[in-house]
Amino acid sequence: MNTIGTQVRLTTFGESHGIAIGGILDGFPSGVVVDEDFVRSEMRRRRPGQSAVTTARNEADEVQFLSGIFEGRTTGTPIGFVIHNTNNRSNDYDNLRDAFRPSHADYTYSAKYGIRDHRGGGRSSARETAVRVCAGALCKLALAQMGITVQAYTSQVGDIRLEGSYADYNLALAEENIVRCPDAEKAAAMERLILDVKRDGDTIGGIVTCVAKGVPAGIGAPLYNKLSSSLAAAMMTINAAKGFDYGDGFASVTGRGSQQNDIFFDDNGTINTRTNHSGGIQGGISNGQDIYFRVAFKPVATILCEQPTVGVDGRDTIISARGRHDPCVVPRAVPVVEAMAALTILDHCLLSRCTRL
Amino acid sequence: MNTIGTQVRLTTFGESHGIAIGGILDGFPSGVVVDEDFVRSEMRRRRPGQSAVTTARNEADEVQFLSGIFEGRTTGTPIGFVIHNTNNRSNDYDNLRDAFRPSHADYTYSAKYGIRDHRGGGRSSARETAVRVCAGALCKLALAQMGITVQAYTSQVGDIRLEGSYADYNLALAEENIVRCPDAEKAAAMERLILDVKRDGDTIGGIVTCVAKGVPAGIGAPLYNKLSSSLAAAMMTINAAKGFDYGDGFASVTGRGSQQNDIFFDDNGTINTRTNHSGGIQGGISNGQDIYFRVAFKPVATILCEQPTVGVDGRDTIISARGRHDPCVVPRAVPVVEAMAALTILDHCLLSRCTRL
Amino acid sequence: MNTIGTQVRLTTFGESHGIAIGGILDGFPSGVVVDEDFVRSEMRRRRPGQSAVTTARNEADEVQFLSGIFEGRTTGTPIGFVIHNTNNRSNDYDNLRDAFRPSHADYTYSAKYGIRDHRGGGRSSARETAVRVCAGALCKLALAQMGITVQAYTSQVGDIRLEGSYADYNLALAEENIVRCPDAEKAAAMERLILDVKRDGDTIGGIVTCVAKGVPAGIGAPLYNKLSSSLAAAMMTINAAKGFDYGDGFASVTGRGSQQNDIFFDDNGTINTRTNHSGGIQGGISNGQDIYFRVAFKPVATILCEQPTVGVDGRDTIISARGRHDPCVVPRAVPVVEAMAALTILDHCLLSRCTRL
Amino acid sequence: MNTIGTQVRLTTFGESHGIAIGGILDGFPSGVVVDEDFVRSEMRRRRPGQSAVTTARNEADEVQFLSGIFEGRTTGTPIGFVIHNTNNRSNDYDNLRDAFRPSHADYTYSAKYGIRDHRGGGRSSARETAVRVCAGALCKLALAQMGITVQAYTSQVGDIRLEGSYADYNLALAEENIVRCPDAEKAAAMERLILDVKRDGDTIGGIVTCVAKGVPAGIGAPLYNKLSSSLAAAMMTINAAKGFDYGDGFASVTGRGSQQNDIFFDDNGTINTRTNHSGGIQGGISNGQDIYFRVAFKPVATILCEQPTVGVDGRDTIISARGRHDPCVVPRAVPVVEAMAALTILDHCLLSRCTRL
Repeated sequence: MNTIGTQVRLTTFGESHGIAIGGILDGFPSGVVVDEDFVRSEMRRRRPGQSAVTTARNEADEVQFLSGIFEGRTTGTPIGFVIHNTNNRSNDYDNLRDAFRPSHADYTYSAKYGIRDHRGGGRSSARETAVRVCAGALCKLALAQMGITVQAYTSQVGDIRLEGSYADYNLALAEENIVRCPDAEKAAAMERLILDVKRDGDTIGGIVTCVAKGVPAGIGAPLYNKLSSSLAAAMMTINAAKGFDYGDGFASVTGRGSQQNDIFFDDNGTINTRTNHSGGIQGGISNGQDIYFRVAFKPVATILCEQPTVGVDGRDTIISARGRHDPCVVPRAVPVVEAMAALTILDHCLLSRCTRL
Repeated sequence: MNTIGTQVRLTTFGESHGIAIGGILDGFPSGVVVDEDFVRSEMRRRRPGQSAVTTARNEADEVQFLSGIFEGRTTGTPIGFVIHNTNNRSNDYDNLRDAFRPSHADYTYSAKYGIRDHRGGGRSSARETAVRVCAGALCKLALAQMGITVQAYTSQVGDIRLEGSYADYNLALAEENIVRCPDAEKAAAMERLILDVKRDGDTIGGIVTCVAKGVPAGIGAPLYNKLSSSLAAAMMTINAAKGFDYGDGFASVTGRGSQQNDIFFDDNGTINTRTNHSGGIQGGISNGQDIYFRVAFKPVATILCEQPTVGVDGRDTIISARGRHDPCVVPRAVPVVEAMAALTILDHCLLSRCTRL
Repeated sequence: MNTIGTQVRLTTFGESHGIAIGGILDGFPSGVVVDEDFVRSEMRRRRPGQSAVTTARNEADEVQFLSGIFEGRTTGTPIGFVIHNTNNRSNDYDNLRDAFRPSHADYTYSAKYGIRDHRGGGRSSARETAVRVCAGALCKLALAQMGITVQAYTSQVGDIRLEGSYADYNLALAEENIVRCPDAEKAAAMERLILDVKRDGDTIGGIVTCVAKGVPAGIGAPLYNKLSSSLAAAMMTINAAKGFDYGDGFASVTGRGSQQNDIFFDDNGTINTRTNHSGGIQGGISNGQDIYFRVAFKPVATILCEQPTVGVDGRDTIISARGRHDPCVVPRAVPVVEAMAALTILDHCLLSRCTRL
Repeated sequence: MNTIGTQVRLTTFGESHGIAIGGILDGFPSGVVVDEDFVRSEMRRRRPGQSAVTTARNEADEVQFLSGIFEGRTTGTPIGFVIHNTNNRSNDYDNLRDAFRPSHADYTYSAKYGIRDHRGGGRSSARETAVRVCAGALCKLALAQMGITVQAYTSQVGDIRLEGSYADYNLALAEENIVRCPDAEKAAAMERLILDVKRDGDTIGGIVTCVAKGVPAGIGAPLYNKLSSSLAAAMMTINAAKGFDYGDGFASVTGRGSQQNDIFFDDNGTINTRTNHSGGIQGGISNGQDIYFRVAFKPVATILCEQPTVGVDGRDTIISARGRHDPCVVPRAVPVVEAMAALTILDHCLLSRCTRL
């Protein structure tokens, strides 16, 4: 299924080396002013070729909106858009026609469909995330009108990690460096690590942390549409994502309830909490505090050396990757995580209008 | 939304202290022999009051099937079932009417709905998971006919953890002790820790690891219905779940691609992998290897001591929990994790029949 | 799929001669006062055995609510409810085990599922509509708080038809007679026709007309969730329904655009129309006028005489119906049509809150 | 919601006078050979400007496929496609900016969204049906491989109607004339009527009948996903559709059960029926007989004369249509009805694979 969302739904299409990728954003509210400069700036944050730590594939990633916007505002009808693939070098991928890259989706697509577009990974390529970023930019514009912001940053690359919580950093600084880490010193170390790994023809993983501020209490829903569940699902659809947690997450398992409970208090007429171990969500519904979560990304599977594998004939063979690849997906995953978060939160915000008579 | 699944859909209802809880399992395939003894044994694995490390609330949790089964076999029509609440002591909860327990869903339900059944947490109580276990038992019966098994176990409580992977243990041993850990020595330590915590009126978290064997290659779907995304979503709907990862998960971020890629080889005519860092899923689709993942559970919020909080009037107050609670939710979460995994995998198995012409 | 609705969703279960039928109404708004007397009165309008023109099967059809209601008001959590089957005479149906009744669903269920509960038609029995009426009663209560009413009546039985439009009658009179027709004279003729047909052991069809008043302009949605499309879908799920039209419907095809266009005019500050050929829906969205539509019901297939057919072995045989059946389904279909309309309109009303930022 | 279908899902976008219209066909099975000539021929059957009885707006309606097809075959990934709008004369519609055309969706879109693209009806224009025909052509190709065909024809225009059933005609003849009626004499009369009406600047309605052959028994599903319900919903999403019935439909209400039951018999080892009043569907599931149904279309609202109406300011005014319009939508609706039927039936055929273990 290539659709995500309940009320606000994004449906995407497109292969890495086809004519174009694109999407339809449906159920988007009418009356949102479309700031195309903002959309372009978001696209640039994800685009390949932006820095030394990303793939050299150079795509302008220009979005063309085809519908749903009239005289600069959304009309409530579906927003169709396309992004043409311009910098294809498909014959870089001829060797993928006959063999399966280890830990890629080549084999599983073949097992499922019996046919696949081998060029650049086809549908399984992270190229599709450009569509998400475009849709996410529109969702951010709508959220901004509601006073909600979503920001992500790189909190770990390999074993270099930020020890503090998101609240310990000025997140605006994340965009000041090419790895998108708000701690300049750690950022420099991360950059060196990525470049080292790249020099080896190898890849490295990392973690993106994301924070949503301004979400009012009462957004989300029990039981199978929990905000936490929707965020997890959305994040785990991103290429190379291997894990998700929110609030104290995996670290919470070693603490005790008495340490981790977030005490409510009367903050001059507003219900507030002393701490935020919960990550802003209790019982699947927002409590008005900041929502924060982490997404783990594995080292991407494409490495620039020979690897044993099997061919489409099922026989042992050797494959060597060509093409242009990211040594670490995390810096470019930051805007993708934000996009998926924006889409998910906007969706829940609208759905929550249906709760009471 | 109280429904989960696409083709096989579970819809549940019921509050902790209402008349009954129950569900409708729809889209379930016809022709499955319903082994009611097996259903009962699964229910016993989750039921409260089963051991010293669980809540003392004693519920028989007898399932009554109302439809969808004829002469011992499923008919393809919806399977309705109820579980009556028999051991209610609702006035244990009178103090919850007027105040919000810290880190519980009391406040967020109020913020969302403007009204709530305060007795025992109402809808947000983990009591609802009995419904999931019943539905999961039926799904396991269907999966068994396809040669697929699902088994979970406790891999961590507090800071006591199994260092090995699931493959290092005889998982059948997990059911031999009350914490459901396949390493007897660690199990004993976990049990001691839980009893210590219980003595303090406190709670502790932990991790459940789950393994599905026998899932053929090609199950799952790009892009927004990835098997990994569906599993994450399903697990994050469980009470107290704070994190999910699969394969090497969060640990993968420190490795390199050259170490983590799973090399394919020709295993006497079958495509196999030398390692399984991927956790049996690549590009959201199964590759025929074992699928394994982890779910992190926080220490549950109900602790047996006084805590500051706010009342429904928004003013500061003090609350002290009464009632009967689990000091550690993990042992009883094991069958719930299995149930949600069985439901998710059966759903994807059926959907995968629609892929090719 | 045994679920209908997008935001407000009804999922039902149950066979004609199983233990119980029931449903889960999910996504229903919180804060609705549940008038149980009203629910009971609606159930009585549909219950069998209510008059000489309906089946003699006598069911009290008592609804037991199991969840989602607290201290008399809905809480926003799923409303589970059951209706026990009390007046089963299953061995009336032993002859259905081995043969397929003509124009019934016996054969198609067998073809689809390979197994069926033959007793009284099992899942395909109109008995399930009791569940719809219960859910519809709750929806009517919610709609009433919004100023919206839904009323249906019998407008045709066999070739006895009301010539006027709904606006020509006092619809309150429909409940004054056992066929539910607001024209007393026609009602008497319809009753005579049904009793004649019954005497022959035969059955007859008819038409139900339904009117919703008070639906504001702007409810519904393009393109594949049109209010007209949702109503058609909902009505065509009712047993024995064969056709649907709205506004001038099938009759509109012989007119000309210049005759049928509904001219807008400024009605003291409100936009109103001179006529209502459109039936209150234009482009799939309500225009503030009365919504009205018709549903055609065939003569039910169960007739009390011998009919040739085939057995489950595929060989020719003879079947003769026993059991207790309706000679004309239309009088009891009236509340079912209302229920499905109420569910559909409430669903669209809530969804329409998500349209604008 | 701009998506239709459960397993095979079509999502569309685009306004009448925007840059392009298009769609994403998702869940389409892999391995279908895409005959682009066939797609083009289907598009020509719907395109405007094809004959004297259709609008003069002349659009080539060339489809560009952007994804999901590789080396001439579908890959199972979403099929994105666009159709550029080339023959826009948007200033024909300037007068629609400030006033609402009677019986059009201008007013209801404004009431719902608070903003609308007034040019040519924007999203509510029948131009969007080109997208459906393209998707429907692909579905027909898949169905053809399963031995299933779908064919529609004009059975009534104004009061000129075919008296016989579909089985009385050679349906191949329907494409021999510009009104798409298989009876040449009636076709000529219909054509004359449409031209008369056109001369008056007026419009006229009609009925399309559609037949699907080769659908095996067991396709469809109880209760809220009946094949009949899905067909009704799909048809009622088409512009100007006012009614739907299947089998004997509305006409069945005057007959008796004893006349209308379709007697099963053993047809040399196949279960067959003597008659087909049911229209090939019993209990919402196909019985292996031909499926047939009718769709009523009103006279389209755009007439070439002055009409009173209200302006966007709510005040009385006069509007006169300009632009190029169909005097009767029925001839061009024929391929649209087929497309929606093909989409619906293919969807159900795939879903039916999930029924049994």
